[in-house]
Amino acid sequence: MTLRTGRHFLQIPGPTNVPDRVLRAMAAPTIDHRGPEFAELTKRLLGALKPVFGTAGPVVVYPASGTGAWEAALVNTLSPGDRVLSFETGHFAVLWREMARGLGLDADTDALPGDWRHGADPEALAERLAADTDHRIKAVCVVHNETSTGVTSRIPELRAAIDAVGHPALLFVDTISSLGSIDYRHDEWGVDVTVAGSQKGLMLPPGLSFNAVSDKALAASRTARLPASFWRWQPVIDANAKGAFPYTPATNLLYGLDEALRMLEEEGLENVFARHARHAAATRAAVRGWGLEVLCADEREHSGSLTAVLMPEGHDADKLRKVILERFDMSLGSGLGRLAGRVFRIGHLGNFNDLTLAGTLAGVQMGLELSGMPVQRRGLEAALDVLR
Amino acid sequence: MTLRTGRHFLQIPGPTNVPDRVLRAMAAPTIDHRGPEFAELTKRLLGALKPVFGTAGPVVVYPASGTGAWEAALVNTLSPGDRVLSFETGHFAVLWREMARGLGLDADTDALPGDWRHGADPEALAERLAADTDHRIKAVCVVHNETSTGVTSRIPELRAAIDAVGHPALLFVDTISSLGSIDYRHDEWGVDVTVAGSQKGLMLPPGLSFNAVSDKALAASRTARLPASFWRWQPVIDANAKGAFPYTPATNLLYGLDEALRMLEEEGLENVFARHARHAAATRAAVRGWGLEVLCADEREHSGSLTAVLMPEGHDADKLRKVILERFDMSLGSGLGRLAGRVFRIGHLGNFNDLTLAGTLAGVQMGLELSGMPVQRRGLEAALDVLR
Amino acid sequence: MTLRTGRHFLQIPGPTNVPDRVLRAMAAPTIDHRGPEFAELTKRLLGALKPVFGTAGPVVVYPASGTGAWEAALVNTLSPGDRVLSFETGHFAVLWREMARGLGLDADTDALPGDWRHGADPEALAERLAADTDHRIKAVCVVHNETSTGVTSRIPELRAAIDAVGHPALLFVDTISSLGSIDYRHDEWGVDVTVAGSQKGLMLPPGLSFNAVSDKALAASRTARLPASFWRWQPVIDANAKGAFPYTPATNLLYGLDEALRMLEEEGLENVFARHARHAAATRAAVRGWGLEVLCADEREHSGSLTAVLMPEGHDADKLRKVILERFDMSLGSGLGRLAGRVFRIGHLGNFNDLTLAGTLAGVQMGLELSGMPVQRRGLEAALDVLR
Amino acid sequence: MTLRTGRHFLQIPGPTNVPDRVLRAMAAPTIDHRGPEFAELTKRLLGALKPVFGTAGPVVVYPASGTGAWEAALVNTLSPGDRVLSFETGHFAVLWREMARGLGLDADTDALPGDWRHGADPEALAERLAADTDHRIKAVCVVHNETSTGVTSRIPELRAAIDAVGHPALLFVDTISSLGSIDYRHDEWGVDVTVAGSQKGLMLPPGLSFNAVSDKALAASRTARLPASFWRWQPVIDANAKGAFPYTPATNLLYGLDEALRMLEEEGLENVFARHARHAAATRAAVRGWGLEVLCADEREHSGSLTAVLMPEGHDADKLRKVILERFDMSLGSGLGRLAGRVFRIGHLGNFNDLTLAGTLAGVQMGLELSGMPVQRRGLEAALDVLR
Repeated sequence: MTLRTGRHFLQIPGPTNVPDRVLRAMAAPTIDHRGPEFAELTKRLLGALKPVFGTAGPVVVYPASGTGAWEAALVNTLSPGDRVLSFETGHFAVLWREMARGLGLDADTDALPGDWRHGADPEALAERLAADTDHRIKAVCVVHNETSTGVTSRIPELRAAIDAVGHPALLFVDTISSLGSIDYRHDEWGVDVTVAGSQKGLMLPPGLSFNAVSDKALAASRTARLPASFWRWQPVIDANAKGAFPYTPATNLLYGLDEALRMLEEEGLENVFARHARHAAATRAAVRGWGLEVLCADEREHSGSLTAVLMPEGHDADKLRKVILERFDMSLGSGLGRLAGRVFRIGHLGNFNDLTLAGTLAGVQMGLELSGMPVQRRGLEAALDVLR
Repeated sequence: MTLRTGRHFLQIPGPTNVPDRVLRAMAAPTIDHRGPEFAELTKRLLGALKPVFGTAGPVVVYPASGTGAWEAALVNTLSPGDRVLSFETGHFAVLWREMARGLGLDADTDALPGDWRHGADPEALAERLAADTDHRIKAVCVVHNETSTGVTSRIPELRAAIDAVGHPALLFVDTISSLGSIDYRHDEWGVDVTVAGSQKGLMLPPGLSFNAVSDKALAASRTARLPASFWRWQPVIDANAKGAFPYTPATNLLYGLDEALRMLEEEGLENVFARHARHAAATRAAVRGWGLEVLCADEREHSGSLTAVLMPEGHDADKLRKVILERFDMSLGSGLGRLAGRVFRIGHLGNFNDLTLAGTLAGVQMGLELSGMPVQRRGLEAALDVLR
Repeated sequence: MTLRTGRHFLQIPGPTNVPDRVLRAMAAPTIDHRGPEFAELTKRLLGALKPVFGTAGPVVVYPASGTGAWEAALVNTLSPGDRVLSFETGHFAVLWREMARGLGLDADTDALPGDWRHGADPEALAERLAADTDHRIKAVCVVHNETSTGVTSRIPELRAAIDAVGHPALLFVDTISSLGSIDYRHDEWGVDVTVAGSQKGLMLPPGLSFNAVSDKALAASRTARLPASFWRWQPVIDANAKGAFPYTPATNLLYGLDEALRMLEEEGLENVFARHARHAAATRAAVRGWGLEVLCADEREHSGSLTAVLMPEGHDADKLRKVILERFDMSLGSGLGRLAGRVFRIGHLGNFNDLTLAGTLAGVQMGLELSGMPVQRRGLEAALDVLR
Repeated sequence: MTLRTGRHFLQIPGPTNVPDRVLRAMAAPTIDHRGPEFAELTKRLLGALKPVFGTAGPVVVYPASGTGAWEAALVNTLSPGDRVLSFETGHFAVLWREMARGLGLDADTDALPGDWRHGADPEALAERLAADTDHRIKAVCVVHNETSTGVTSRIPELRAAIDAVGHPALLFVDTISSLGSIDYRHDEWGVDVTVAGSQKGLMLPPGLSFNAVSDKALAASRTARLPASFWRWQPVIDANAKGAFPYTPATNLLYGLDEALRMLEEEGLENVFARHARHAAATRAAVRGWGLEVLCADEREHSGSLTAVLMPEGHDADKLRKVILERFDMSLGSGLGRLAGRVFRIGHLGNFNDLTLAGTLAGVQMGLELSGMPVQRRGLEAALDVLR
């Protein structure tokens, strides 16, 4: 039976622990979304979102979860049969590719393989684009931080690879589990559509998602022929200019977003990123201290927001997670897709601090021992060495 | 300057005044959407939703606002170029038709005209369908309660009209401003897709929307060829069987829904409908007492959830609304589309009671007088006669 | 059966309708009352309280309800057997006198009679004090606004009466239902101890109470011989200088107070008083429109925060209140003490606005009619004339 | 600068971390304290409190903090000059004695000394009472769990000591930091007045306090001559019979109490006590693992709710606490009275769990190392051995 005293440790890689400030902000009465007070809120929010995405351009806010923002990136810019290049970096990269296929795009011709332990490969990208001399590939989809693997792709290098071969494909980046946790720069890195969601680094419940949109993407949206209505950018951008939305916005989640953006600003994005990096380093130290292996195989690509841990051969990650949930009231992320049962994932993102990380790692360590896993005990201490 | 003491009167026809019980329920910490506690919540919710829609079939919940559920009805069931019959009952009927057109459907051939003061006409429907002998019309779209006009179409008569000519078209009904306020029966009335949203009779903030789906609609979804991914029913229905969702659900809005459904059950749907009908009757009595005209021109079609009021010639509804907002801190609905400036709308739906209605009507009456409108003073007293 | 949809109308003369802003502020996590963050809160609060009391001196905050602050005024300053002058202006004046007696003071020798329809009489006061040539009377207790009667005593005239005869008695004033609603000035009016509570004009739940203390009262506290510990001012004042309290403060109510004081400041005290006066005038207009009598018999003494209404002979106020509670979900104040059953009281104080008052008066009017009372219907309209 | 992301660790020995369920319950609108809904709440609460105190008799609830309930125990039962026996077990025992003195009782004649590392001594009690052959001692005051020292006195043995000599003195027990955390039985242990507060094991913010009262204490209250009014039991008990209070109760704190009592019942008091004992044992293991000394010197008297830790000679506990607050956002209890600077106190009571304790102890361990204290690192691991 699950212990239910004290605060639950929600250490999945999102939804994250929503700050009580944000929860209280969301509990304010809903107001008229066509009134003057709402218009002010909208304008303030849209302004405050820009630095978080690293953009001076529009950020389209959807009253929908992150998957919807994936769809928005595709249907706004592409036409039936368009070729979309993608990297098999993990479960979510695969899901996005499947969505592209389901929407009538050609997502298979340029599906670059991957081992789920590395990020998107800039060299493979350059090679494939170079070969596409008649520019049939219309878009490149990358998951910045693979929530299923804890691997962070190097966007600037991918951008450089595209530029090196002078290919005009649009660059779409999913930052669902990186935005507000790991350094990200929509404009500087030349991203065309950045996809994001509310429930990770933005410290909100799920229910809002985002597209930051480049001029090039906006231009593409004027000729794209995939049918679209709800996800269309232009009506949102037009309405936003007056502080409105073309359909009923998720008012109370916007209240929460307003407060969450205030918190990010109070802490300072630089500090937010440094905090995440430090917690990630401490977690990896713990994993190694236990004698276990981090899934991410490239030192340059360790995620700041979550760590996926490989189970020793013959041990089931879900059994471990069940023990930890029942004994210590902590939720950890499961292995997804082909990693099911083989990894567990520790979320250390969002509204988080050193002692909550220490509690988290203590729970993992005790769970490993209780499950009879062949681990060493030095994990927690190694993490504290990093934190201290 | 707007007075800001006491409670704001949010008397637009939605979003409605969210009960404090629901707001507090939404302020609970977000939990793991893949854990056992969430699965229980999902199953409880999905069960409790059925009687509200009057269905024994599936209700698909979207983490998105109502417009999205319109799109879902269309893209799940139809193919490019399919003919969609619609009635111009008001602004939202027009928007839905425009969405259909935007998605590549033929929404113009069968766009039945309307004067925005009557509901959908069963006779016109029968006539048009009878003429469609080779069944080229694939779907009939009706807005049950036109939020822009306060007119409620008679769904059973429309159903009877379809059946009378034996036409196989699907019947789609938008209940965004009627569900949980006005009697509605998905199964009994033979509706194929019922579209609903969270922010009106369901007493939640915006951010959730719904499709109740008939077997016939589900069957249609297997062959429909409009591209779709996010809005697909089948993955949701499949995941729901295990208490899950195929993508991150809007957890905290679901907490609110759980509480709101409990409140509807406590009051009893019959009582909820009777309350709305009574408040609507009192409001119409007030309008007539002022010597003004209700927009809805058919006694059988008065809305239980809102009342649109025609302004006397030469008077601007938006000026009146501004006076009322600034002097009495009450938000009323504006005239939409071709009714802009010509009507104002009083919402009397959701979490509402006699004295709040009395305050609402007092505010309208004072606003009318302050605006120098040629009205009589008997409105409020006439309404109290109905309430008492 | 009580209707329970929409918002309850809590129109007793306190506790008042707590603003949702204040409720949310109170829901913040409790912090260390000995830490730096709490010290800041305390200092900000104590500063912001001063203008509300109209004092530059200390305001002692008790983690206790208002009755406790009555006791504090007495035990800090008086010695066993001390004579205390009081006016029988209503139920609460009587209770305070009984408390004085219970604490071993002589509260009977100088208990001036009253008819519960007038405030404290400056002439009677002057006369009694003039007769007390050897200054045996140590304190004069006045209830500024009698919550049981809706009569507001004229403190400046009472002060003038004391001064006119040069009597050294301390002046204690209960402002529980006037502070933050009716103009009040501790320093300017020469009050020695002002007693207040959180649950009326301060818009908080019950649980905090206050003593504003003059130098003269502080001096008296150094020689007073009534046993006291919890209520002692000096330890509180000493600890407050460091942002602390001598015993555990009611942290979350203090959060609420912080927010409530911010709201009073935003509205401006002058505007707050004017709003209350206007609502009181509208309520009296309603009472007269119904052909009923306001209990308060002196035009100079009408309360800004509540109105007590006399029932016609042969009618029971509590039966009326029950009808109104069950039919309209509105709580009104009962007749207290010797007014039981003979009056009902309408609270129009705190976080309140025109339309809520209109709803309130509509509920009273409908309740009167439903109860078969011999009333005229012109009340509500008369009130709207005042509001408009 | 204090880190302010994630959840603050409030590990002082009270106020404790208020569960979010309780905070949300407190955010409900204040209701009429004289209405039927409130009466139901009161009756439910008063019933649910009895098992927590282990009594079938009345529990008087004060809208005041715990210090007030100390005063209530004294002024209800005693007369000026009565002799009160007390034990110097720590800071709060001393404060209670000082309060008795301040109220005009003789608290010095029978002030038994103590070293602040042991509980009240049953033998010393027996001896002193045996010597009091004419029964001049009227009351024995014991602090069950000394919040300043982490020592829990053995009440049954103290009761046995009183009985052994057949002395009629009343037995007063302060359970402010034990009730709802450490096994306690008002009736079975023959306690006459149990003093409690809301902000520790009851998991509420400060602002409510309690007296559980024996028949013998009630009888004493009828002849006691200390002046009292606010604290009088009888009016409260009389009003409670009708679900009311004699003065305005702290409604919203009562909402929280209702929820907190539900949580205690859900967990089961036995489990609550076992959990606290287990966390206390783990904490002591940590302290010893660090090579430090627990203040409590008697194995039978270790507190289940907090642990006071002695600093090594030459080290300042407040400096350590500051480091921990600033670096790890955790509040620990300071040394009080003569222990100032010499101990720090770890609260492990109330709404608490294993991983939060692990985080807490990790924070202490890192703080000790950062402060350059001569400690060993084995503390945290030793605690995890106990938890696992």
